[in-house]
Order: sequence, then structure tokens, then C-alpha cells
Amino acid sequence: MQTSLQQLHEHYMQRAIALAKKGEYTTSPNPAVGCVLVKNGEIVGEGWHQKAGEGHAEVNALKQAGEKAKDAIAYVTLEPCSHFGRTPPCAQGLITAGVKHVVIGMQDPNPLVSGRGIAMLEEAGITTEVAVLEPAAKNLNPGFIKLMSTGRPFVRCKMAASLDGKTAMANGESKWITGTDARQDVQRYRAKSCAIISGADTVMIDDAKLNVRHSELGFVANDLKQDQIRQPVRVIIDSQNRLAPTLALFNQHSPIILVRTKLENEQQWPHFVKQIQVNAITIADNSSKADLNDLINKLAELGLNTLWVESGARLAGAFLAQGLVDELVLYQAPKLMGENTRGLFDIEGLAHLQDAISLDINDIRMIGADIKITATVNK
Amino acid sequence: MQTSLQQLHEHYMQRAIALAKKGEYTTSPNPAVGCVLVKNGEIVGEGWHQKAGEGHAEVNALKQAGEKAKDAIAYVTLEPCSHFGRTPPCAQGLITAGVKHVVIGMQDPNPLVSGRGIAMLEEAGITTEVAVLEPAAKNLNPGFIKLMSTGRPFVRCKMAASLDGKTAMANGESKWITGTDARQDVQRYRAKSCAIISGADTVMIDDAKLNVRHSELGFVANDLKQDQIRQPVRVIIDSQNRLAPTLALFNQHSPIILVRTKLENEQQWPHFVKQIQVNAITIADNSSKADLNDLINKLAELGLNTLWVESGARLAGAFLAQGLVDELVLYQAPKLMGENTRGLFDIEGLAHLQDAISLDINDIRMIGADIKITATVNK
Repeated sequence: MQTSLQQLHEHYMQRAIALAKKGEYTTSPNPAVGCVLVKNGEIVGEGWHQKAGEGHAEVNALKQAGEKAKDAIAYVTLEPCSHFGRTPPCAQGLITAGVKHVVIGMQDPNPLVSGRGIAMLEEAGITTEVAVLEPAAKNLNPGFIKLMSTGRPFVRCKMAASLDGKTAMANGESKWITGTDARQDVQRYRAKSCAIISGADTVMIDDAKLNVRHSELGFVANDLKQDQIRQPVRVIIDSQNRLAPTLALFNQHSPIILVRTKLENEQQWPHFVKQIQVNAITIADNSSKADLNDLINKLAELGLNTLWVESGARLAGAFLAQGLVDELVLYQAPKLMGENTRGLFDIEGLAHLQDAISLDINDIRMIGADIKITATVNK
Repeated sequence: MQTSLQQLHEHYMQRAIALAKKGEYTTSPNPAVGCVLVKNGEIVGEGWHQKAGEGHAEVNALKQAGEKAKDAIAYVTLEPCSHFGRTPPCAQGLITAGVKHVVIGMQDPNPLVSGRGIAMLEEAGITTEVAVLEPAAKNLNPGFIKLMSTGRPFVRCKMAASLDGKTAMANGESKWITGTDARQDVQRYRAKSCAIISGADTVMIDDAKLNVRHSELGFVANDLKQDQIRQPVRVIIDSQNRLAPTLALFNQHSPIILVRTKLENEQQWPHFVKQIQVNAITIADNSSKADLNDLINKLAELGLNTLWVESGARLAGAFLAQGLVDELVLYQAPKLMGENTRGLFDIEGLAHLQDAISLDINDIRMIGADIKITATVNK
């Protein structure tokens, strides 16, 4: 059987996607991008984007190829950029190096610049083709794509429960419902996210650090050194200003955003702690809670494109009820806990079955002895 | 690559297992068994057990092979029987036909007769080998095997819920949480079971028939004609004698067992309805509920080896709490229903996480848009 040109293109694009994935724990808020340069059926250069501020995938691949880039075919998972940022435009780099053809996974998701890199290449006489393995290319960067194309971040909500949907016994006992493998998976999601969102209750009850711990990253720790870890911003919703600087959260010197409905004196906090004020919604008991939609908009303004909500039933339920969750990641332990327990989601306003939040299951798999379910939340 | 003798044996045993499965909806309480006769690398006879009282798998295969059975190798999923029942012993049939070698999936699980069929063959000079694809052979008949080897039936408990473990809204609304494919799967489990167990509440609230409906069997309906359907015994736990003969349950003329803690006059019931009395357990409000362990023993005495519990949270929880469930079959709809709802299992006596009922997940798969989870209940 002969290998068609299409198959060849997909083969090298698959490699470019694998390269892009090497950056998925470090590039945030930049997208993970991979690039392969092929000449006479041989890979002459490979590169991926490693970290904001450092070389783009194309630059790294061209550097490796050197003179051999001339007349090569470039495979790149995302349309080469056309703008001068911290680095010169990658489209110009490919032109200067003399590549003859560029195969692209997906166009730039930013409507303001989408297609400009391709146009720059075409004007220089380089042929292009777009949307090769596009679904896989898109899967690399759901947050970057969503923020660029809609102005809103991609929100994942994580919960862990028993098979009958319980998160804790009535007495609050909940450690550990799921196993080591599931908890490592959570650490990897944290590492991939721009920000972790949680509530004051969770932080206070568990004295949670909500950081990425190298020792708990599992297989990823082999490729990601301790000093390469980029700690996501920790966004804690503390409407009632209840958090105190003595909590373990504040021992980790990485950015924290305290979400308040009313600001207080900043001086009690370490330098890496900032407060942001969001609108308040007055609730039944006349106390106020944070307007989560307002919060999401403010985080978007900060360029935080991938958010990981790791909280209790009330906050998770509120995100769901307000239609703010894109993807649900649910770990189910092989246990039944019965009714003398706490449930998964406290969702306001559901009285009838037709009001239930509808999901599309994307993936089910075992992770250790637990089940992991990934689902898109329909809106 | 050469095919080894072991591979050949497994190939034909696989075929015998496939034949056995053709009987899985009709043989109850007998086991599903398949048989293949092979001579000079050619299948000369195939048979499976179709229905209690009709020919065993070996008899049917020998009939098809006729003279060609002489010097053939027989592959049979279960040790040929050695006793005179409604049919002569199959081991004798194989001897008379002159087969030269018998390959067996699993030995007879009844400790009183296990090995006797093999001994009968060996004494007649026929060589045998046992435990070829034994796990698959065992999977054919969990109920038959468990009853024969322990005197207790195999109990499956089915529940359907949203992904957050909810079975109904607070107002009771619950139709339909799961989709058509899951409901067809339930019908197939009913068809495979000796008995369906449910509670008076479920029967009264849903006016449930708890029967097997040919039109809802899905792909199985292609192979199973309407008049071949064997209705499982419907066992309804009605401790308070609340059921009335006007319910839809009693329109279907197939066996019903009403489980009472106190018998009442039988004459009001149609001929296919029997009452059995089980021990009563007095509960908090001084009413009594049925002793489920006593019930299971009484159903075992009736030879009902595969039980399908399809009930509400209270009865399912009671079966689980008393350690009576072997396998959990859980359908999860891609929905979130929140906390203003009813939960999956009302299990008494769970105060601490260490008391939680522990499961081993055997299988996870999509069934239509729903998730199906099959788990062994650890005891």
C-alpha cells in the first residue's frame, strides 16, 4: 500500500502535536505549539514552545535545522504568528529560512490576526495548507483558543466522589475518597491551568495549599524538573473576608488573588497576594456572595485563559448554575457511602428533571482503581 | 507462525462459548452450555443448550455430527454431566459416539458431582483436558455456579442515576433519567435472570410490570422470538401486605412471589401468584420489614440462581448493607440534578468513611449517551 501525501502530512503533524505537548505544563498563558521541518523525507528540525518569553516552536525548529531548512516543508500545529512581540514574527522566520511549503494544524483563533500569518507566507511565494489534524491541534489549547476567540476563559470543574456521588460523610470526613493516581491526575491539571479557583471554606477546612507539587505529578515528573514548574495563580473566593495570613496557602510564594466583594487593607498580606473586587450578589440571609460571572470577566482581563475550579459542592454548584463551566472532570472512587453524607453539587434552581444540567460524556477511563469521567457541560 | 495445539483448542472453545451464549436468555435455571465437535480440522457438529427439559449442548452437537462424531475432538464449555436426569448423561453420549478427546472449559461447580463426568470419560479411554478458557467459561453462568458451589444465588443490583448520583427530583419525578439503550440493557438483564426482585413501593408508585418485553430487548430481539421469551419470576417484597390485585403487575400471567412477613388469604390472587413467608425484622417505628437473608435462602431453595434487584434506594441499600449483593450494575445519565433530589442507596450503619462499601470496577462503557458501570461488591 502506498503512503499518500495526506498520510505523510498527518504523520508529521502528529509528531508536531507530540512536540507541542512537551510544553503543556509550562507555556501558560501562551499556547503549546510544536513544529517539525522535513526535507527529502527526513526530519531536519524539531521545536516546541517551552515558556512564555522564550523561543516559539518555529524558531526552535529552524535553529536546529540551520541551512537544511531551505526548501523544507514545515509542519506547525498553530498558524505562525505575524506580529512582532517578544520575538520577531514566526512567519517571517520561515520565509527567511527558505521553507517551500507550510502545513498548519489550525488557524490563529484570534479573529483580529487569524489568517495573517498564512497571508504573509503566501505573499512570499510559500504554499500553505491548513486544518491538518485540526481537532487534535485544537485540543492542545482549549483555554488559549476560547479566550482568543470569545474573550472568555475555559473553565474546568473538578470533583471527586464515591460511585453514589458522595464527597464526605456527615461528620465531614473525606480524606481520601479517591486514590493516588487520581490525585496525581489532579496535580497535572493544576500544572496545566493558568489559575486554580477555590473557596474560602475549602482553604480553611483543609488548610489547602492548592499548589503544584513535583513529587505528586506522577509520570510527568520525569520530564518536568522541579524548577521548571510554573505555579498557577491561586484564586480564592473569600466574599466575607474570612481568610487569615496564617493559613498554609500563604506559605507558598506564588501569586494569590483574593476575591472580595469589599476590599480590605492590603498591607497584612505578603507581596504575592493581591485582592480583586467583584460585584456582590445579596443572598437569602442578607449576606453577600461573589458574582462569579464578574469574576470570570476580571480573570479574562488578566489573560488567565484556563481555569481549574477545585472546590466544594456550593461553589461548584454555583459555577454550574450560572453556566460558567465548560468541562467537568469527575473522579469516582469504587465505594458506596450511602445517604448520611454530603453530595457533589449544590445547584440552585433545579426543581424539575428538565432543568437538570445536561452533559456530553467525552471520555471514561480507569485511573488506578478509580473511574475518571470527562464531560462537556451543555449550555 | 505456526498455530499451536493450545491456540487451536482455544479457538474451538471460543466457538463453543459463543454457542453457549445463544442460550443465555432461555436456559435459566439451567446453565448456558456450548459444544463443538471437530474432526480433521473441520467442525462436524455444533450444539448448545436451549431450554430446560430440552437437549443438552453435547446431545445437539452429536446429533448434528452423526457418524462423523467418531474419533472427533469434543469442546464443551462445562464438564459433561454424569447423571440420568431428564436426559441420559452427556458423558455417556460422547462415549457411545466414539469421540477420542474431550476439551472442557470448566469442571462442574457442584462439589457433589464435580469430576464425575471426566472420570466417566477417562474410564472409557477418552482423554480429557480441563480449564481451557476457564474464566470465559465461568462468566457464562455466574448464578448457576454460585448456587451449585455455595448454595446461595448470584445477586445483581441495578440502579440508574444522574452523574451526581440522583435518582429522582424531590417531587419524585424520575422518568426517564437514562436513555433507550440503557433501558434495553436492563430488559436483557431481566431476561437473563431467574428472578427480578423489587419492593412494593416501586411496584405501586410506577405501577411497574417488571416483565421482559420483546419490543424493548434491542439487538437480542433479532435472535429471540417473542414466544421464546422466558419471563423471570417476579419477587415483590411486600412486608406490609399493601399490594392489590388491580395493579398492572398482575396482568402479566407469569410467576409472581409475594414476600410477606405475615401470610394472608391466597384466594384473592391469580393462580400464578404465590406468597412466601420470611422472617420479620422489627424496625424503629415498630413496623416490620422482611429479613432479606432469609428471603435469599428461600429463593435458593426454589432453585433461583440469578437474581436481579431492581428497586428503590431503601431496598437496594438494605441488600447492600446486609452484604447480599454480588454485582452492582449502575447506569449514569449525562446529567447533574443537584441536591434537591433523591439519592442512590439508603445504606444503614455507615458513619465513617472506613465503613463505606468497597467495590471493584469490572467494566466501564458507554451505552448510548449513558455510562454503564459494572462492579463487584467486596464483602
